[in-house]
Amino acid sequence: MPSYYPDSSAVLGAELLVEQLTPGAQGTEKDNPNVYVVGDVGFFKEITTAPGEASTDANKHNFKEFQGNLGMAECQYIIKHELDNLRAKDEAHVPGYPKMKLYPGKSVIRRMQSKGILVQVFPLHEKEELKRLSFSWFKKIKLSFQPLDDIRHYFGEGMALYFGFLEYFTLALIPMALIGIPYYLFDWEDYDKFTVFAGFNLVWCTVILELWKRLSASLAYGWGTLSRKKAFEEPRPGFHGVLGVNPVTGRAEPLYSNAKRQLRIYLVSVPFVLLCLYLSLYVMMIYFDMEGWALMIHDEEPTFWTGLLLFIPSIIYAVVIEIMNLIYRYAAEFLTGWENHRLESTFQNHLVLKVLVFNFFNCFASLFYIAFVMQDMVLLRQSLATLLITSQILNQIMEAFLPYWLQRRRNKKAHKRMIKTMEDKELPLSEQVKLEADMSTYLGTFDDYLELFLLFGYVSLFSCVYPLAAVLVVLNNVTEVYSDAFKMCKVFKRPFSEPAANIGVWQLAFEAMSVIAVVTNCALIGMSPQVKSYFPESETQLIMWVVGFEHFLLASKFILTFVIPDVPKHIQIKLSRLEFESLEALKKRVSLTD
Amino acid sequence: MPSYYPDSSAVLGAELLVEQLTPGAQGTEKDNPNVYVVGDVGFFKEITTAPGEASTDANKHNFKEFQGNLGMAECQYIIKHELDNLRAKDEAHVPGYPKMKLYPGKSVIRRMQSKGILVQVFPLHEKEELKRLSFSWFKKIKLSFQPLDDIRHYFGEGMALYFGFLEYFTLALIPMALIGIPYYLFDWEDYDKFTVFAGFNLVWCTVILELWKRLSASLAYGWGTLSRKKAFEEPRPGFHGVLGVNPVTGRAEPLYSNAKRQLRIYLVSVPFVLLCLYLSLYVMMIYFDMEGWALMIHDEEPTFWTGLLLFIPSIIYAVVIEIMNLIYRYAAEFLTGWENHRLESTFQNHLVLKVLVFNFFNCFASLFYIAFVMQDMVLLRQSLATLLITSQILNQIMEAFLPYWLQRRRNKKAHKRMIKTMEDKELPLSEQVKLEADMSTYLGTFDDYLELFLLFGYVSLFSCVYPLAAVLVVLNNVTEVYSDAFKMCKVFKRPFSEPAANIGVWQLAFEAMSVIAVVTNCALIGMSPQVKSYFPESETQLIMWVVGFEHFLLASKFILTFVIPDVPKHIQIKLSRLEFESLEALKKRVSLTD
Repeated sequence: MPSYYPDSSAVLGAELLVEQLTPGAQGTEKDNPNVYVVGDVGFFKEITTAPGEASTDANKHNFKEFQGNLGMAECQYIIKHELDNLRAKDEAHVPGYPKMKLYPGKSVIRRMQSKGILVQVFPLHEKEELKRLSFSWFKKIKLSFQPLDDIRHYFGEGMALYFGFLEYFTLALIPMALIGIPYYLFDWEDYDKFTVFAGFNLVWCTVILELWKRLSASLAYGWGTLSRKKAFEEPRPGFHGVLGVNPVTGRAEPLYSNAKRQLRIYLVSVPFVLLCLYLSLYVMMIYFDMEGWALMIHDEEPTFWTGLLLFIPSIIYAVVIEIMNLIYRYAAEFLTGWENHRLESTFQNHLVLKVLVFNFFNCFASLFYIAFVMQDMVLLRQSLATLLITSQILNQIMEAFLPYWLQRRRNKKAHKRMIKTMEDKELPLSEQVKLEADMSTYLGTFDDYLELFLLFGYVSLFSCVYPLAAVLVVLNNVTEVYSDAFKMCKVFKRPFSEPAANIGVWQLAFEAMSVIAVVTNCALIGMSPQVKSYFPESETQLIMWVVGFEHFLLASKFILTFVIPDVPKHIQIKLSRLEFESLEALKKRVSLTD
Repeated sequence: MPSYYPDSSAVLGAELLVEQLTPGAQGTEKDNPNVYVVGDVGFFKEITTAPGEASTDANKHNFKEFQGNLGMAECQYIIKHELDNLRAKDEAHVPGYPKMKLYPGKSVIRRMQSKGILVQVFPLHEKEELKRLSFSWFKKIKLSFQPLDDIRHYFGEGMALYFGFLEYFTLALIPMALIGIPYYLFDWEDYDKFTVFAGFNLVWCTVILELWKRLSASLAYGWGTLSRKKAFEEPRPGFHGVLGVNPVTGRAEPLYSNAKRQLRIYLVSVPFVLLCLYLSLYVMMIYFDMEGWALMIHDEEPTFWTGLLLFIPSIIYAVVIEIMNLIYRYAAEFLTGWENHRLESTFQNHLVLKVLVFNFFNCFASLFYIAFVMQDMVLLRQSLATLLITSQILNQIMEAFLPYWLQRRRNKKAHKRMIKTMEDKELPLSEQVKLEADMSTYLGTFDDYLELFLLFGYVSLFSCVYPLAAVLVVLNNVTEVYSDAFKMCKVFKRPFSEPAANIGVWQLAFEAMSVIAVVTNCALIGMSPQVKSYFPESETQLIMWVVGFEHFLLASKFILTFVIPDVPKHIQIKLSRLEFESLEALKKRVSLTD
C-alpha cells in the first residue's frame, strides 16, 4: 500500500477501520463491485468551536455545554473528511492504475471517484436510530415541534436548519392565514379592503426574517456551529486546470485562469440566461393569448364548462412553468459546472444566482404584467390562485411521490427484501449496502429552499389581492414537512452531513424578496380605488404620497435590520465568555512556557 | 508599594521605567504637582495579527511583512494599556487615600484619575521625530501624497486613516470639480443642464465609497491592523453602577441596569433631540422671514447695497447653524454620558447618532425646504453657496486659528520658551512636560469626520443646482489638510494612539448620505423643466419614470456594494495564507505535544 498522510485538523487520534465485504451469493446482478465498509475506532474531540483559539483547559469545561457526546452526523462528517484527505505523497499515479495521475497533495479518493474506480461513497442508514427518528418525526400523529436535535444528530446541522426554517416559516404564516380566512369566508372580495392586510403583511415579512436570524443563531449555538470557522476549502471535485502552486497553501494544485472563467460567464452564461428569460416571456405571451381565447369563448356562450375553461390556460401555464424551471435547473447546473469554479461555495453561489433570477422571472413575470400593465385585479387574483395551487400539487408529486415510485419500480425485484430491510434490523450488512446503493441520491436542500422561496413570493408579493395565499401555503407546508421527512428517511440514501451555522445565501434571497414585496404592495395599494378616492383631484399627489410611504417603509426596514441584533443577548454573552476564557488560558499557557 | 498585577495580553516581557521628575525651580506657578515620566525597557512583540491564533514559528516569517520594528504609536499604546491594566488585587482603597475605594480588578490609574489625584496622563511629543514628520508633512511646498506611514508611526492608525480618508476624498472630488468649473465659467446657469452632472455624481459617490473600503483595507493590512481582533473592552472611565459580577469575565465590576438606561434614552434623550430639531426648524422659519424681508427691501429700491443685503440672512443663518451645532454637540455629549453606557464604543455610537441626526437636519433642512416645498431653484443655489462658504470659513477659524490663538494667550509668559521648545531639542525634560501639559487636548477625529460628512452632504445632495460646490470643497480640503497637520503637530498635546482597521461608523454615515443623495437628485432631475418637457401631456407618467429610475439606481447601488469585494484580492490571498500557516503550525505543535 502507498503511504498517504492523513491531514485532518479536526480529529486527533481517529483511526478508521476498513473492512471488505465479500460479495453476496446472488448471481442476479451482473456487476459485483468490491464493497468496503469504513468505520471508526472511537473519537475524542479536540474542540474547535471557540472562535479560533487553540484548545485549552478552560475550553474543556465549556464542552459539556455544547453536547454530551459526538453526534452521528458529526462522526460521519469526520470520516468523510479523513477519507477526502488521504493525499498522495510522492506517487505519480494510483497504484495499479498507471493512467490515473496523482501529484503530491492530490486527494486519492477524489481522483478515484472522478475516474470511476470508486463508484460511489455514501453513509449507511442506521436502522435503530432511523426507526427512533422516524417515530418521533412523522409517525406519531400528535401535533408537536420538529425533533430538530434528533434530526441534527442523524442528518447534521444543514438538514436540521432546513427543517427548522420550514417549521418556523409555517408557524410565522399562521397569523396571516388566520387574518386571510375571514376575508375569504365573508366574501370581502372587494380588494380595496386588503390594503390594511398588505400593510400588516409588510411589517410581518421584515420581522419574521429578522427573528429567524436570532432563532437560527440560538440553534447553531446549541449545536456548537455558530462561531465555527470555515475550513480551508479544497477545490471541488469537477474542477480542472493546469498544475500550478496554490498561493495560499503552497501546495501543488490545478489552477485555472480567472480571466477565462470571466469570459465563459459573460460571453456564454449571461447570454444564455437572457435567452431563457426571453423564452419565458414568449411563453407568457402565448399564455395571454390562450387566456384571451378562453375568455372569448366564455363570453360568447357562458356555460359551466366554459367557466371551467377559463382556468385551463392558467393550469397549462403553471405546468409549463414547472417544466421550464426543471429544464433550466439542469442547464444552469451544467453551465455553472462548465464555468469551472474552483470552490464548491463559489459554484453554489453562481448556481443559486442563475436559478433564482430565472425562477423568479418565470414564476412572477405574468403576475407583474397582469398587475401593473393590464391592471386587471380580477385576473390577477385568479391567475395567482391557479399558479399557486397547481405548482403546489406538482411539487408534492415531483418531490415525494415520483422518487418513491421510481425507486419502487427500480427495485421491483428487490422489493420484498427492501420492505424487510425497513422493518428488520437483522439483515446482513452486505444486503443493506446493496439495497441502499440503489436508493436515489438526495441532492441537497437547494430545491427545498427554492420551493419555499417561491411560495414566500406568492404570499408576499401580491398578498393584498389574494389573502388566502397564506392559508394555502400553510397547508402546503404542513404536508411538506411530512413528505420531506418521509423522503429523507425512506426514499433517499442517507446524505453526507454538512455542518452549518445558518441558512446562508437563502437568508439574503428571502430578504431581497421582502424588499421587492414592499415595492409591489405599495404600488398595489396606490392603485386601489379606495386609496384613489382620497385624492380625487390630483393623481400626482396620490403618487407622491405612495412613493413617500414606500420610501419610509424601505428606510424602516433597513433601520430595523440594523437595530435588531442578529444574535440574542444571552448567546452573545456566552460567546464572549468563551472567547475571554480561551484568551486567559492562552495567556497562562504562554507565561508557563516562558 | 501595593502589588498590582499587570494584565496585558499584547506584551510579554515589557517592563516600564518610572522616573519622578523634580519640580523645576520657577516659583511662578502656584501648583507644582508631581510629574512622573513612564518609559519602556524595550519590547518584543508576540504577534496578535494573524486572526486569533496562538503565535507560532510560521508567523514569525510573516512578521517582517508588516513592519521591521515597533512603531512609536504602538509602543505608546502598549504603555497606555499597561498603565490602564494596573489593577487592584486585595486593596480596599488606594494606599494613602482611604476615601478612594478599590475592589479586586479595578484599574488603579482610572480610579486615581476620576478622583483627581492623577491630574492628567498624556504622551510627550518627540522633538526629533516631530520635526521630521512636520517637514515631510506640511513644511515642504511641493505637491505630494500624505506621508501616511509616518503619520501612523507617530500618531497611530486612527489618525493616519483620517488623513488617508481626507486625502482620498479630496482626490476623488477633483473630477467632479473639473466638470463643475466650465459650468460656472461659461455661465451655464440654467440648471436643467446639470441633470447629466447629477447622474455622473450619483455613480461617482457610490464608486468612491466602495473603493475607499478597499484602499482602507490595503492600508490596514500594511499596518497589521486589518484582522486585528477587538480586545475585551473595559468599562469606560465615566461609567458607574452597583458593584456586581461581569457575566463574561467573572470579575467584580460596577453593573448598571439596561432597563434604566433605556428609560433615560427614551424618556429624556429622545425628547431632547426632538426639541432641538423643533428649535432648529423654528430658527429656519425666522431665516425665511428675514430672507423675505431682505427681498422686499431689495425689490422696493434695488441698489448695490440692497443686492448685498440679500446675502446677509443666509450668512447670519449659517453662523447661527454653526453655533447651534456647537452647543448641541456639548449637550449631546453630556446627555450620552448621563445615559451611562458601559462601553466606550456604545457611548460613541449613541453620541454619533445623536450628533449626526441633528447636524444633518440643522444644516440641510432649509435646503430641503427651499428645494421641495418652495421649489425655488435660484434661492436654493444662492442659499447653498452661502451656507457652504460661510461654514467653511467658520470651520477653518474654529478649528485651527482659534485653538492656536487661545494657546498663545495662555502661554504668554512661557511664550519665548515655547518658541525655543519648538526649535531647540536640548530643553530639559521637566520643562518640556510643563509646556506640553498646558497645550490643548485633542478630542479625537470625531469633529473632523463630522465636518467632512457635512461637506460631502453639500456636494452630493444638491449637486445638480450648484456644481461649483465640489470645487469649493476641494479647495477647503487642501487647506484643511495643512491646518489639520499643523494643529496636530503644533497646537495640541500629542494624543494617545488607537489602533484602527477602518473609519468605522463613518463609512456607514457616508453611505447613508449617498443613498439620500440618490433620492434628492432624482427628485431634482424630475423637477427640472428640461425633463418635464419630455412629458408634456402627463405629469403622472413623468413621476413614474423618475421613481422607476430612482429605484433602479438604488438597486444598482446595493448590488454594486455586494459585487465589489471589500478587501482586494491580493490581500485576501495573503490573509488566507497567514491563517493557513498558523493552522498548520498549530497542528504541528499539537501533534508534538501528544
